[in-house]
Amino acid sequence: MSQSVATHEVRKNQIQDPFWSEYIRLVREVMVPYQWEALNDRIPGAEPSHAIHNFKIAAGLEQGEFYGMVFQDSDVAKWLEAAAYLIEEKRDPVLEKVVDGVIDIIVKAQREDGYLNTYFTLKEPGREWSNLAECHELYCAGHMIEAGTAYYKATGKRKLLDAVSRFADYIDTVFGQEPGKLKGYDGHQEIELALVKLYHATGNEKYLNLSRYFLDQRGEKPHYFEQEWEKRGRGLHFPQLSMVHDHQYSQSHLPVREQGKAEGHAVRLVYMCTAMADIAAETGDAGMLAACCELWDNIVNKRMYITGGIGSMEQGESFTADYDLPGDLAYAETCASVGLIFFAKRMLRLHQDSKYADVMERALYNTVISGMSLDGTKFFYVNPLEVYPEVLGKNKNYNHVKAERQGWFSCACCPPNVSRLLASLGQYVYTVQDASIYVQLYIGGQMEAVINGASVRIEQQSLYISEGKSRFIITPEQTSEFTLALRLPEWCDQAEVTVDGGNKTYFAGDKNGYIELTREWKPGEEVEISFSMPVQIMKSHPQVRQTFSKVALQRGPFVYCMEQVDNGKGLYQLQLPRKTEFMISEQMGSPGGVKVIRAIGQRMKPTEEWADELYRSDSLWSMEPAELKFIPYFTWANRGIGEMTVWIQEATDE
Amino acid sequence: MSQSVATHEVRKNQIQDPFWSEYIRLVREVMVPYQWEALNDRIPGAEPSHAIHNFKIAAGLEQGEFYGMVFQDSDVAKWLEAAAYLIEEKRDPVLEKVVDGVIDIIVKAQREDGYLNTYFTLKEPGREWSNLAECHELYCAGHMIEAGTAYYKATGKRKLLDAVSRFADYIDTVFGQEPGKLKGYDGHQEIELALVKLYHATGNEKYLNLSRYFLDQRGEKPHYFEQEWEKRGRGLHFPQLSMVHDHQYSQSHLPVREQGKAEGHAVRLVYMCTAMADIAAETGDAGMLAACCELWDNIVNKRMYITGGIGSMEQGESFTADYDLPGDLAYAETCASVGLIFFAKRMLRLHQDSKYADVMERALYNTVISGMSLDGTKFFYVNPLEVYPEVLGKNKNYNHVKAERQGWFSCACCPPNVSRLLASLGQYVYTVQDASIYVQLYIGGQMEAVINGASVRIEQQSLYISEGKSRFIITPEQTSEFTLALRLPEWCDQAEVTVDGGNKTYFAGDKNGYIELTREWKPGEEVEISFSMPVQIMKSHPQVRQTFSKVALQRGPFVYCMEQVDNGKGLYQLQLPRKTEFMISEQMGSPGGVKVIRAIGQRMKPTEEWADELYRSDSLWSMEPAELKFIPYFTWANRGIGEMTVWIQEATDE
Repeated sequence: MSQSVATHEVRKNQIQDPFWSEYIRLVREVMVPYQWEALNDRIPGAEPSHAIHNFKIAAGLEQGEFYGMVFQDSDVAKWLEAAAYLIEEKRDPVLEKVVDGVIDIIVKAQREDGYLNTYFTLKEPGREWSNLAECHELYCAGHMIEAGTAYYKATGKRKLLDAVSRFADYIDTVFGQEPGKLKGYDGHQEIELALVKLYHATGNEKYLNLSRYFLDQRGEKPHYFEQEWEKRGRGLHFPQLSMVHDHQYSQSHLPVREQGKAEGHAVRLVYMCTAMADIAAETGDAGMLAACCELWDNIVNKRMYITGGIGSMEQGESFTADYDLPGDLAYAETCASVGLIFFAKRMLRLHQDSKYADVMERALYNTVISGMSLDGTKFFYVNPLEVYPEVLGKNKNYNHVKAERQGWFSCACCPPNVSRLLASLGQYVYTVQDASIYVQLYIGGQMEAVINGASVRIEQQSLYISEGKSRFIITPEQTSEFTLALRLPEWCDQAEVTVDGGNKTYFAGDKNGYIELTREWKPGEEVEISFSMPVQIMKSHPQVRQTFSKVALQRGPFVYCMEQVDNGKGLYQLQLPRKTEFMISEQMGSPGGVKVIRAIGQRMKPTEEWADELYRSDSLWSMEPAELKFIPYFTWANRGIGEMTVWIQEATDE
Repeated sequence: MSQSVATHEVRKNQIQDPFWSEYIRLVREVMVPYQWEALNDRIPGAEPSHAIHNFKIAAGLEQGEFYGMVFQDSDVAKWLEAAAYLIEEKRDPVLEKVVDGVIDIIVKAQREDGYLNTYFTLKEPGREWSNLAECHELYCAGHMIEAGTAYYKATGKRKLLDAVSRFADYIDTVFGQEPGKLKGYDGHQEIELALVKLYHATGNEKYLNLSRYFLDQRGEKPHYFEQEWEKRGRGLHFPQLSMVHDHQYSQSHLPVREQGKAEGHAVRLVYMCTAMADIAAETGDAGMLAACCELWDNIVNKRMYITGGIGSMEQGESFTADYDLPGDLAYAETCASVGLIFFAKRMLRLHQDSKYADVMERALYNTVISGMSLDGTKFFYVNPLEVYPEVLGKNKNYNHVKAERQGWFSCACCPPNVSRLLASLGQYVYTVQDASIYVQLYIGGQMEAVINGASVRIEQQSLYISEGKSRFIITPEQTSEFTLALRLPEWCDQAEVTVDGGNKTYFAGDKNGYIELTREWKPGEEVEISFSMPVQIMKSHPQVRQTFSKVALQRGPFVYCMEQVDNGKGLYQLQLPRKTEFMISEQMGSPGGVKVIRAIGQRMKPTEEWADELYRSDSLWSMEPAELKFIPYFTWANRGIGEMTVWIQEATDE
């Protein structure tokens, strides 16, 4: 591994946190076992997955036919990756045996030449690489590569790593600039970021170059998807979609360096950006870095919901336009926020700037965990900011919106994406650059890093979400000088810091948003940081028409919302005065000390009953005091079906 | 004609009106000639219609193949109907000769047995009546029947009337309860209302009974569309739509008497309701009448835009749910408002209640004429109440919304529907019941009625839209007693009335909303009525979440809107104070003395520039005075592309 020679790096971080440990337990005890049953078609009533069967048939171990989506293999790969992270976090011989068994099957299903894809092997042999626009062939390869590298990192076992390396070697013989090779790239970006992981795991630069090739080729003219479409006689797998001709959908409308704006399918865009940032970091490609920064800014400053959700429309699961952020029609796919976190993590490798971690936090604490129920058995694919259940099923613009989480999806991308992110959450808490350890997230656990070639352990004890506090016990191998850089979250102007029992000191962040503590650290020294967590009344940019004159509440990392069960029907009738006092309290049965917010607001009502008239000119309205209750957005829809809104009308009366 | 024996009826009404005559001139001089060219494929650059060619080929006069939609014939029929109304209004030998020529071709295209439909005759012979759900076969028949009756009424010429009667006779042999007959009905209602017109034109009750049969059969179980789908081997003409299985779409989900709520395709619903009201009036069917009233109330009290538009979503061009009235996503098809006027006219035959004429006025003065440009050459199919052009083409939820009127549509339903309504507008101004003449609309012209078997002429001189006034010169054959009932519009509490130069008297309406003047009328007596026309600040029902805390302006029959060209960009940032003074003035170049409204409002602005941040907690906002200008909704989008909104945020500051 190329990483093993680094003099500065995070080695390991095992999470122990009053809030997040429960999520990781759910992944380990509920989601990963449940998904294993699903992959094996043992969930009564659920649509069969057939994904394991497909591999067994391709391996010659079973008879039968391929069943499922063209990208069905990726469900197995994402499950393997999540399982690998769990094993890395805590060895688990039972799970490891299951994983080894699956890997044996997968390797048997691999062709002699390295090719591995059950859909084409079983259903369309001979038509490999004929429809990159639609068939997710390299996408599936990418997920298997991610699984292979994760399992190798967790266990040191090479079987899957070697298999995916052979596959990548084969892919490298198929694609490239050389005469006779295909000049293509996948419709759904994924292999690009996976090949960088494979490069890190093996040190083989071929994989890095192949990743870069795919990125460089994207959007070149003549357009590859059009060419291959002509070549295969204009056949389509998904005639109802426009994967071949809508180039913006797959971010192939322009070369990646020239895109500038976040267009098309949101998940594909952030997966692509993740790889672009990787390539920029690995190769020092300034054009690629500039493109990453431009796309980041466009997403975060113009096209992101306050919950960290991205994708403003269902059509194409896509971005729409700058400042176009409808709350009720939002797509805000859980997977897209997972991908945004991948992108943020790569940007933090390039620039130690807290703005990337701020977005990571926003997406993680809001949209990502909104994506699952508090018991880990139900999931949102789409994460709206405003729901009126009465119109769902009637107004078809809301066909993608659900008022309650669902058990499993036929296109089951989001639950395993949440699993693999949460199972690997330890990787997102710290970054190391030179002799500085950056605390990006205040999530408790045991971290081991290498600084100046020497080991440093840091135990973080976090009461971040409940009390705005975190304590660090710093244990270098021996006393040594380095910097502990503590992120000052964007919702906080300054923090109170105590180093080794000394006086409390107030710090504002430096220009990059960190409080840098540089000293000779002795083993066992402690740092405490404390943030005040007032309720913040958030406004959106004046060009966001959908939320104009509305406000949203934030406290700490959480965005809040109102539900009908607490506030009655007609949430749009409620207003929050500009000056108001907020009362903070515990919520019964809520995870990890999450608080609710109460305030006295008002409900606008007509002074007399409206009978049947739809429109009146002579109506009088008045304000009636209303006790408002706000809960963290991620906890919505855990108490039955009802209205929900993040944004509330601001009262202009003082 | 059955009507010729009536002792009370409106015989004729020729419009002469400072506002509407110009529209009728546009129909006569621009729209009908243009559409004739279009039907003959002589519009350079436009998609060919081929509709006349189809008839010529079916008539054996030309060689070739059918081209166009399954309902292409109806474009010819609607054009004929509009031409007939123009000829009825003013004989026009040139136009009449063209019409006679078309009728000759149509009659040659009719089969021996009476069947007449070029699509099935040319393209699917032998498959007639096999796909009523999708193929508009009876719908096309209905439009041809309407054309035949209109031309007979206009000219006394029977050729087309006889042809469509033979066709209706043939249809009567195909459909019915008797063994061996089909138990079906058309997916798109239209023939039901047409058969009532044919009954009126011929006096043959068979046609009335057939109309009633189609209505009674609709929504019966087992479902006809499912049965015929099975019978024809499950073939579909429009697989991308759900015309066969989505029964609500075509109002065939329940028997018509049990529907109660306005569901599905809005045009189909109002065409159906029109026929239902006809049947209730002709047969005294109390159940049918109750169903009409229930559907009327549901549309008007729960599902109608303030502009008289109906249909809240593009999917299925359909209604959605009670109080679900998004302005930006509105479908509000021009044709649907035309159909709503048809329905209102039939309800006025049943009940002399001004509420029906109020809706007729609302739809006519706002959505219907919004549907065409001020020069009669461009058209809106969809009539939104709020448009932000920057997101059009990017956010695909707005794919149906255009920021400017279009030249012609491949599905060219709206322009000819506007033509035939405007060309027959004289029929909507008065109704007669017993010895009362009701003035439903204040549109100037020369009317002839029969009251107690004697002729009465009324000349209306209207300055309704400019000054809120109208004058009536009443000329009975000889002095006779009858009632002149003047509608008090819903936007007016009382009117000032002067009878024959006497004193001014103020009247409120009676319980049905009319000012009834009953007296011995001497020839040449005059009545003047004057309405005050203050600007009205309209609010919508508190359950309409999309317009909550917003207001719209109305003055007289017109709903107003703001455009970017007058008010700057960011219309959602503007607010109208509760108490404000309105200034009324002429608009340069506007038709018929239409006024614009000005008021001092305010624009909500951040006190400091927002840089890149999308969300901020520390932002301060202030109000800046803004001169607001409102124009009548129907005149929007005549000055280039820009933002538009009907509803504006109400300022709660006093």
